[in-house]
Amino acid sequence: MDLAVNVRQGMPPMWLAEVIRNAVDDLAAYPSGHQARTAVAKRHDRNPDEVLLTAGAAEAFVLLARVLKPRQAVVVHPQFTEPEAALLAAGHQVQRIILSGDFTLDPTLIPESADLVVIGNPTNPTSVLHPATTLQALARPGRTLVIDEAFADCVPGEPESLASTPLPGLIVIRSLTKTWGLAGLRIGYILADAPTITRLAEAQPLWAVSTPALAAAQACMTPQALTETETWAHQLTLDRTHLIRGLQALGAHVVPNPRASFVCVRLPDIRLPLREKGFAVRRGDTFPGLGNDWIRIAVRDRETSDAFLKAVEATMNTSPTR
Amino acid sequence: MDLAVNVRQGMPPMWLAEVIRNAVDDLAAYPSGHQARTAVAKRHDRNPDEVLLTAGAAEAFVLLARVLKPRQAVVVHPQFTEPEAALLAAGHQVQRIILSGDFTLDPTLIPESADLVVIGNPTNPTSVLHPATTLQALARPGRTLVIDEAFADCVPGEPESLASTPLPGLIVIRSLTKTWGLAGLRIGYILADAPTITRLAEAQPLWAVSTPALAAAQACMTPQALTETETWAHQLTLDRTHLIRGLQALGAHVVPNPRASFVCVRLPDIRLPLREKGFAVRRGDTFPGLGNDWIRIAVRDRETSDAFLKAVEATMNTSPTR
Repeated sequence: MDLAVNVRQGMPPMWLAEVIRNAVDDLAAYPSGHQARTAVAKRHDRNPDEVLLTAGAAEAFVLLARVLKPRQAVVVHPQFTEPEAALLAAGHQVQRIILSGDFTLDPTLIPESADLVVIGNPTNPTSVLHPATTLQALARPGRTLVIDEAFADCVPGEPESLASTPLPGLIVIRSLTKTWGLAGLRIGYILADAPTITRLAEAQPLWAVSTPALAAAQACMTPQALTETETWAHQLTLDRTHLIRGLQALGAHVVPNPRASFVCVRLPDIRLPLREKGFAVRRGDTFPGLGNDWIRIAVRDRETSDAFLKAVEATMNTSPTR
Repeated sequence: MDLAVNVRQGMPPMWLAEVIRNAVDDLAAYPSGHQARTAVAKRHDRNPDEVLLTAGAAEAFVLLARVLKPRQAVVVHPQFTEPEAALLAAGHQVQRIILSGDFTLDPTLIPESADLVVIGNPTNPTSVLHPATTLQALARPGRTLVIDEAFADCVPGEPESLASTPLPGLIVIRSLTKTWGLAGLRIGYILADAPTITRLAEAQPLWAVSTPALAAAQACMTPQALTETETWAHQLTLDRTHLIRGLQALGAHVVPNPRASFVCVRLPDIRLPLREKGFAVRRGDTFPGLGNDWIRIAVRDRETSDAFLKAVEATMNTSPTR
């Protein structure tokens, strides 16, 4: 049982798989992103020229790193390591701001002189959701504020999302990978002011996003798809509460107020024994700010979580260090 | 009738469409290029570490432009404009070598000091196929020689391809777009020495090529697929001869010895009148070295070509400038 991946279990829903299969009929022509771009813009109350479709969020980070010329780039950790890796690969220096305690964002830690700030919301791997007001207050003239909202649709209503908030210098990155089971299709998007989008688009290879990916993006923006997301986000909330209670009952420390499709847990000496019992969890020690006694656990249905909790309990009882 | 596009008419063949549709079942996982890479390597008698799969040839040009640091880049024209555009966008200066006459390659035109040389073979839009020996003789220590073989599989047996020739500094770019009706899927590849491939891979976003594209690439490398390509290339040869004879009978100048899926023709004042008759052809004047009396015409079946030739004849008879 793979609880290490951060994607919703299984395949895309049948209606979405059908949309993608039907796109095969249109493969002979070069991709045209116009309709998908318009659909994404509408979903977030933005203009189409404030939207850039990308081959997954991974391409978005590479484009940002190539186009932006920060003098002082700051990445708030613990978080997904790709934004920092892309900045480093593009030759930029990166300053790490490492949160601790309950991993909530202390804005006073961000240097006033930082002209690029990268934050995940909700954050991978801590699952912490930062308030939109705190994030907005980080905007400055001359500063680019990048919010990675790859997991934003895990939160019912998305109250802290800045996707629909046009703010000077604000760049929001979204992904369709996690919610819709589309990691293999490569589709995500960037929301920013029109001049920034133009610069990013110029750095993007021609026809960067495939026709099936564009069809999927468009389909995931319909009111029906958004309703399905919302329903899933509510179910996720229930399933996550069940998992958290079980973990806490076993004495594990769970990072408070998780809001994404995973929880971040301090539970030493457990990852490898769990693997022997057939459960993979994500190691925490590759995330700056987390040591090797941290793990990230995907939220699944109750049955799966119960089986997992049982394995955790068994591991703790037999562990020689306890 | 669109004779302006350079892709094989219609959809991918049914067996290939099926492969791509089936890949939808694997979309929840991140793409893994291992099998496709191995299949491409085997098809060209190369090692897998000499292969990089890309989101179309367009991404390949962008990666090359970002990774290579030429002091003197030379692009041989007339040719596809994207390689030069990618080099310019990456901040490089580009020297144009413009062929004329029958557009065959005169190697003495290439400056000895050029450390990057880009050539198409067969060339878009002239359809000229340069001899492998002439191209190989352009290789030098310290020089990168990029051969764009996007249309190589139009030539039965591919006698002048360098895809299977490991030569220091040689980079070959191939596309699956044109032959297989996959322009919308974004799949191509680079063949080069292993250290160059490693550098290019480092510049590529994570998971740049989608799972359906990888499945298609693998399927297009099977002996059956290669046989199908060869059969099509033979048919193309016959259809092209038919089109050329018709054009020549009308007094048009066709660039001699065309070997790709299009012909390059000097025929003034014809493009817009043809459009009114329902035939789109590609304007030549956006290709350096060709004026506005040049057009590029896609090779189609005899019936389509006959209808096209009839429209050309009618246009010439009514043209006020004749």
